[in-house]
Amino acid sequence: MVTEMTFTLHPQLAADTLHIADLAACRVLLMNNSNFPWLILVPMRENLREIFDLGADDYRLVMDEVKNIAEKFAAFTKADKINVAALGNMVPQLHIHIIARYANDAAWPNPVWNSGVTGKPYDPQKAKSIIKELKEIF
Amino acid sequence: MVTEMTFTLHPQLAADTLHIADLAACRVLLMNNSNFPWLILVPMRENLREIFDLGADDYRLVMDEVKNIAEKFAAFTKADKINVAALGNMVPQLHIHIIARYANDAAWPNPVWNSGVTGKPYDPQKAKSIIKELKEIF
Repeated sequence: MVTEMTFTLHPQLAADTLHIADLAACRVLLMNNSNFPWLILVPMRENLREIFDLGADDYRLVMDEVKNIAEKFAAFTKADKINVAALGNMVPQLHIHIIARYANDAAWPNPVWNSGVTGKPYDPQKAKSIIKELKEIF
Repeated sequence: MVTEMTFTLHPQLAADTLHIADLAACRVLLMNNSNFPWLILVPMRENLREIFDLGADDYRLVMDEVKNIAEKFAAFTKADKINVAALGNMVPQLHIHIIARYANDAAWPNPVWNSGVTGKPYDPQKAKSIIKELKEIF
Protein backbone atom coordinates (compact mmCIF):
# COMPACT_ATOMS: atom_id res chain seq x y z
CA MET A 1 0.00 0.00 0.00
CA VAL A 2 2.31 2.74 -1.24
CA THR A 3 -0.02 5.62 -0.60
CA GLU A 4 1.64 7.50 2.19
CA MET A 5 2.76 10.31 -0.06
CA THR A 6 -0.82 11.34 -0.70
CA PHE A 7 -2.13 10.59 2.78
CA THR A 8 -3.07 13.42 5.12
CA LEU A 9 -4.19 12.72 8.67
CA HIS A 10 -7.46 14.42 9.58
CA PRO A 11 -6.67 17.50 11.72
CA GLN A 12 -8.93 16.33 14.56
CA LEU A 13 -7.06 13.01 14.79
CA ALA A 14 -3.77 14.89 14.58
CA ALA A 15 -4.86 17.14 17.45
CA ASP A 16 -6.07 14.32 19.70
CA THR A 17 -3.20 11.86 19.30
CA LEU A 18 0.54 11.23 19.40
CA HIS A 19 2.37 9.35 16.65
CA ILE A 20 3.67 5.86 17.40
CA ALA A 21 4.45 4.17 14.08
CA ASP A 22 3.52 3.73 10.44
CA LEU A 23 2.92 0.09 9.51
CA ALA A 24 2.46 -1.23 5.97
CA ALA A 25 -1.20 -0.19 5.88
CA CYS A 26 -2.02 1.85 8.97
CA ARG A 27 -0.64 4.76 10.94
CA VAL A 28 -0.70 3.86 14.65
CA LEU A 29 -1.53 6.69 17.02
CA LEU A 30 -1.81 6.97 20.78
CA MET A 31 -4.89 8.83 21.95
CA ASN A 32 -3.60 11.58 24.22
CA ASN A 33 -5.93 10.61 27.06
CA SER A 34 -4.31 8.97 30.03
CA ASN A 35 -7.62 7.70 31.38
CA PHE A 36 -7.58 4.80 28.93
CA PRO A 37 -4.74 3.10 27.02
CA TRP A 38 -6.13 3.85 23.58
CA LEU A 39 -4.74 3.41 20.09
CA ILE A 40 -6.12 4.65 16.81
CA LEU A 41 -5.21 2.96 13.54
CA VAL A 42 -5.68 5.01 10.39
CA PRO A 43 -5.36 3.28 7.01
CA MET A 44 -2.96 5.52 5.08
CA ARG A 45 -5.10 6.03 2.03
CA GLU A 46 -7.24 8.96 0.97
CA ASN A 47 -11.03 9.07 0.79
CA LEU A 48 -11.88 6.21 3.11
CA ARG A 49 -14.88 6.58 5.34
CA GLU A 50 -16.32 3.10 5.81
CA ILE A 51 -14.43 -0.18 6.26
CA PHE A 52 -15.97 -1.38 3.01
CA ASP A 53 -14.42 1.53 1.14
CA LEU A 54 -11.19 -0.50 1.36
CA GLY A 55 -10.50 -2.85 -1.55
CA ALA A 56 -10.28 -6.55 -0.73
CA ASP A 57 -6.47 -6.66 -0.46
CA ASP A 58 -6.16 -3.46 1.56
CA TYR A 59 -9.00 -4.59 3.82
CA ARG A 60 -7.20 -7.82 4.69
CA LEU A 61 -3.96 -5.97 5.30
CA VAL A 62 -5.69 -3.43 7.54
CA MET A 63 -7.64 -6.09 9.44
CA ASP A 64 -4.53 -8.21 9.93
CA GLU A 65 -2.80 -5.17 11.42
CA VAL A 66 -5.81 -4.51 13.66
CA LYS A 67 -5.65 -8.10 14.98
CA ASN A 68 -1.90 -8.05 15.46
CA ILE A 69 -1.82 -4.66 17.19
CA ALA A 70 -4.85 -5.49 19.35
CA GLU A 71 -3.21 -8.70 20.55
CA LYS A 72 0.12 -7.05 21.32
CA PHE A 73 -1.59 -4.10 23.00
CA ALA A 74 -3.65 -6.47 25.16
CA ALA A 75 -0.47 -8.17 26.35
CA PHE A 76 1.33 -4.85 26.89
CA THR A 77 -1.53 -3.27 28.85
CA LYS A 78 -2.67 -6.47 30.62
CA ALA A 79 -6.19 -5.31 29.75
CA ASP A 80 -9.26 -7.15 30.94
CA LYS A 81 -10.90 -6.50 27.58
CA ILE A 82 -9.99 -4.91 24.29
CA ASN A 83 -12.59 -2.74 22.57
CA VAL A 84 -12.25 -2.45 18.79
CA ALA A 85 -14.41 -0.03 16.85
CA ALA A 86 -14.75 1.94 13.64
CA LEU A 87 -17.38 4.60 14.35
CA GLY A 88 -16.54 7.81 12.52
CA ASN A 89 -19.68 9.75 13.34
CA MET A 90 -17.62 12.80 14.18
CA VAL A 91 -14.37 12.42 12.23
CA PRO A 92 -15.09 11.23 8.69
CA GLN A 93 -11.62 9.77 7.96
CA LEU A 94 -11.71 5.99 8.50
CA HIS A 95 -10.00 5.17 11.79
CA ILE A 96 -10.15 2.18 14.08
CA HIS A 97 -10.12 2.46 17.85
CA ILE A 98 -8.28 -0.19 19.88
CA ILE A 99 -8.86 0.48 23.55
CA ALA A 100 -7.56 -1.41 26.57
CA ARG A 101 -10.27 -1.69 29.20
CA TYR A 102 -10.15 -2.67 32.84
CA ALA A 103 -12.98 -3.75 35.10
CA ASN A 104 -11.98 -0.86 37.38
CA ASP A 105 -11.49 1.87 34.77
CA ALA A 106 -13.41 5.14 34.86
CA ALA A 107 -16.03 4.16 32.27
CA TRP A 108 -16.40 0.38 32.77
CA PRO A 109 -18.53 -1.42 31.66
CA ASN A 110 -19.67 1.34 29.32
CA PRO A 111 -17.78 2.28 26.16
CA VAL A 112 -15.26 5.10 26.59
CA TRP A 113 -17.03 7.47 24.18
CA ASN A 114 -19.70 9.64 25.69
CA SER A 115 -18.88 8.17 29.10
CA GLY A 116 -18.74 11.50 30.91
CA VAL A 117 -15.07 10.90 31.76
CA THR A 118 -13.12 14.03 30.91
CA GLY A 119 -10.02 13.53 28.76
CA LYS A 120 -6.70 13.88 30.57
CA PRO A 121 -3.57 14.38 28.44
CA TYR A 122 -0.49 12.33 29.32
CA ASP A 123 2.42 13.83 31.16
CA PRO A 124 4.82 14.41 28.21
CA GLN A 125 7.59 12.28 29.74
CA LYS A 126 5.17 9.44 30.44
CA ALA A 127 3.82 9.62 26.88
CA LYS A 128 7.37 9.52 25.49
CA SER A 129 8.20 6.41 27.48
CA ILE A 130 4.96 4.59 26.50
CA ILE A 131 5.50 5.46 22.82
CA LYS A 132 9.08 4.18 22.98
CA GLU A 133 7.93 0.88 24.45
CA LEU A 134 5.09 0.51 21.94
CA LYS A 135 7.39 1.28 19.00
CA GLU A 136 9.55 -1.66 20.06
CA ILE A 137 6.55 -3.99 20.36
CA PHE A 138 4.80 -3.00 17.15
CA MET B 1 -15.84 -23.44 9.90
CA VAL B 2 -17.88 -26.51 10.83
CA THR B 3 -18.47 -25.61 14.43
CA GLU B 4 -22.13 -24.90 14.60
CA MET B 5 -22.91 -28.16 16.35
CA THR B 6 -21.00 -27.06 19.44
CA PHE B 7 -21.94 -23.39 19.29
CA THR B 8 -24.30 -21.91 21.87
CA LEU B 9 -25.42 -18.31 21.63
CA HIS B 10 -24.94 -16.36 24.86
CA PRO B 11 -28.36 -16.03 26.60
CA GLN B 12 -28.10 -12.24 26.73
CA LEU B 13 -27.58 -12.03 22.97
CA ALA B 14 -30.41 -14.53 22.48
CA ALA B 15 -32.70 -12.37 24.63
CA ASP B 16 -31.84 -9.08 22.90
CA THR B 17 -31.98 -10.17 19.27
CA LEU B 18 -33.92 -11.89 16.49
CA HIS B 19 -32.34 -14.46 14.18
CA ILE B 20 -31.70 -13.50 10.57
CA ALA B 21 -29.26 -16.02 9.08
CA ASP B 22 -26.27 -18.27 9.68
CA LEU B 23 -23.41 -17.55 7.26
CA ALA B 24 -20.29 -19.71 6.89
CA ALA B 25 -18.63 -18.13 9.92
CA CYS B 26 -21.11 -15.89 11.71
CA ARG B 27 -24.65 -15.95 12.96
CA VAL B 28 -26.38 -12.73 11.91
CA LEU B 29 -28.85 -11.29 14.40
CA LEU B 30 -31.11 -8.26 14.40
CA MET B 31 -30.98 -6.27 17.62
CA ASN B 32 -34.59 -5.98 18.77
CA ASN B 33 -34.41 -2.21 19.12
CA SER B 34 -36.31 -0.24 16.53
CA ASN B 35 -34.47 2.99 17.40
CA PHE B 36 -31.47 1.92 15.34
CA PRO B 37 -31.09 -0.58 12.47
CA TRP B 38 -28.57 -2.78 14.27
CA LEU B 39 -27.06 -6.15 13.43
CA ILE B 40 -24.92 -8.39 15.60
CA LEU B 41 -22.57 -10.92 14.04
CA VAL B 42 -21.48 -13.79 16.26
CA PRO B 43 -18.70 -16.10 15.04
CA MET B 44 -20.14 -19.60 15.57
CA ARG B 45 -17.32 -21.01 17.57
CA GLU B 46 -16.96 -21.61 21.30
CA ASN B 47 -14.67 -19.78 23.70
CA LEU B 48 -14.05 -16.61 21.74
CA ARG B 49 -13.80 -13.36 23.60
CA GLU B 50 -11.38 -11.16 21.68
CA ILE B 51 -11.05 -10.80 17.90
CA PHE B 52 -7.51 -12.18 18.22
CA ASP B 53 -8.85 -15.39 19.77
CA LEU B 54 -9.81 -16.30 16.19
CA GLY B 55 -7.22 -18.25 14.23
CA ALA B 56 -5.86 -16.57 11.08
CA ASP B 57 -8.22 -18.35 8.65
CA ASP B 58 -11.33 -17.91 10.79
CA TYR B 59 -10.42 -14.27 11.39
CA ARG B 60 -10.30 -13.56 7.66
CA LEU B 61 -13.56 -15.37 7.10
CA VAL B 62 -15.25 -13.45 9.90
CA MET B 63 -13.83 -10.10 8.80
CA ASP B 64 -14.84 -10.73 5.19
CA GLU B 65 -18.38 -11.40 6.39
CA VAL B 66 -18.31 -8.22 8.49
CA LYS B 67 -17.30 -6.17 5.44
CA ASN B 68 -19.83 -7.81 3.16
CA ILE B 69 -22.73 -7.51 5.60
CA ALA B 70 -21.80 -3.94 6.56
CA GLU B 71 -21.79 -2.89 2.92
CA LYS B 72 -25.10 -4.58 2.13
CA PHE B 73 -26.67 -3.23 5.32
CA ALA B 74 -25.50 0.30 4.46
CA ALA B 75 -27.20 0.05 1.07
CA PHE B 76 -30.36 -1.50 2.56
CA THR B 77 -30.70 1.09 5.32
CA LYS B 78 -29.40 4.06 3.31
CA ALA B 79 -27.40 4.90 6.43
CA ASP B 80 -25.33 8.06 6.71
CA LYS B 81 -22.66 6.07 8.57
CA ILE B 82 -22.07 2.50 9.62
CA ASN B 83 -20.64 1.86 13.09
CA VAL B 84 -18.71 -1.38 13.49
CA ALA B 85 -17.54 -2.51 16.92
CA ALA B 86 -16.46 -5.46 19.01
CA LEU B 87 -16.76 -4.32 22.62
CA GLY B 88 -17.83 -7.21 24.85
CA ASN B 89 -17.51 -5.46 28.20
CA MET B 90 -20.88 -6.82 29.26
CA VAL B 91 -21.40 -9.97 27.18
CA PRO B 92 -18.20 -12.03 27.05
CA GLN B 93 -19.03 -13.99 23.87
CA LEU B 94 -17.29 -12.37 20.89
CA HIS B 95 -19.85 -10.43 18.86
CA ILE B 96 -19.56 -7.64 16.36
CA HIS B 97 -22.03 -4.77 16.17
CA ILE B 98 -22.92 -3.33 12.77
CA ILE B 99 -25.17 -0.34 13.26
CA ALA B 100 -26.75 1.94 10.68
CA ARG B 101 -26.59 5.53 11.83
CA TYR B 102 -28.34 8.65 10.59
CA ALA B 103 -27.46 12.26 11.23
CA ASN B 104 -30.97 12.66 12.68
CA ASP B 105 -31.14 9.50 14.80
CA ALA B 106 -31.80 9.60 18.53
CA ALA B 107 -28.16 9.25 19.61
CA TRP B 108 -26.24 10.99 16.79
CA PRO B 109 -23.34 11.81 16.78
CA ASN B 110 -22.72 9.72 19.90
CA PRO B 111 -22.43 5.95 19.82
CA VAL B 112 -25.67 4.06 20.47
CA TRP B 113 -24.44 2.38 23.64
CA ASN B 114 -24.95 4.32 26.83
CA SER B 115 -26.71 7.03 24.84
CA GLY B 116 -29.65 7.38 27.18
CA VAL B 117 -32.02 6.28 24.42
CA THR B 118 -34.34 3.60 25.78
CA GLY B 119 -34.59 0.41 23.73
CA LYS B 120 -37.83 -0.03 21.81
CA PRO B 121 -38.66 -3.54 20.53
CA TYR B 122 -39.91 -3.86 16.95
CA ASP B 123 -43.52 -4.42 16.19
CA PRO B 124 -43.49 -8.21 15.50
CA GLN B 125 -44.93 -7.84 11.98
CA LYS B 126 -42.40 -5.13 11.14
CA ALA B 127 -39.54 -7.27 12.46
CA LYS B 128 -40.74 -10.23 10.40
CA SER B 129 -40.80 -8.15 7.24
CA ILE B 130 -37.31 -6.65 7.84
CA ILE B 131 -35.85 -10.08 8.58
CA LYS B 132 -37.39 -11.48 5.40
CA GLU B 133 -35.84 -8.69 3.34
CA LEU B 134 -32.44 -9.04 5.02
CA LYS B 135 -32.42 -12.82 4.54
CA GLU B 136 -32.77 -12.24 0.81
CA ILE B 137 -29.95 -9.69 0.73
CA PHE B 138 -27.48 -11.60 2.91
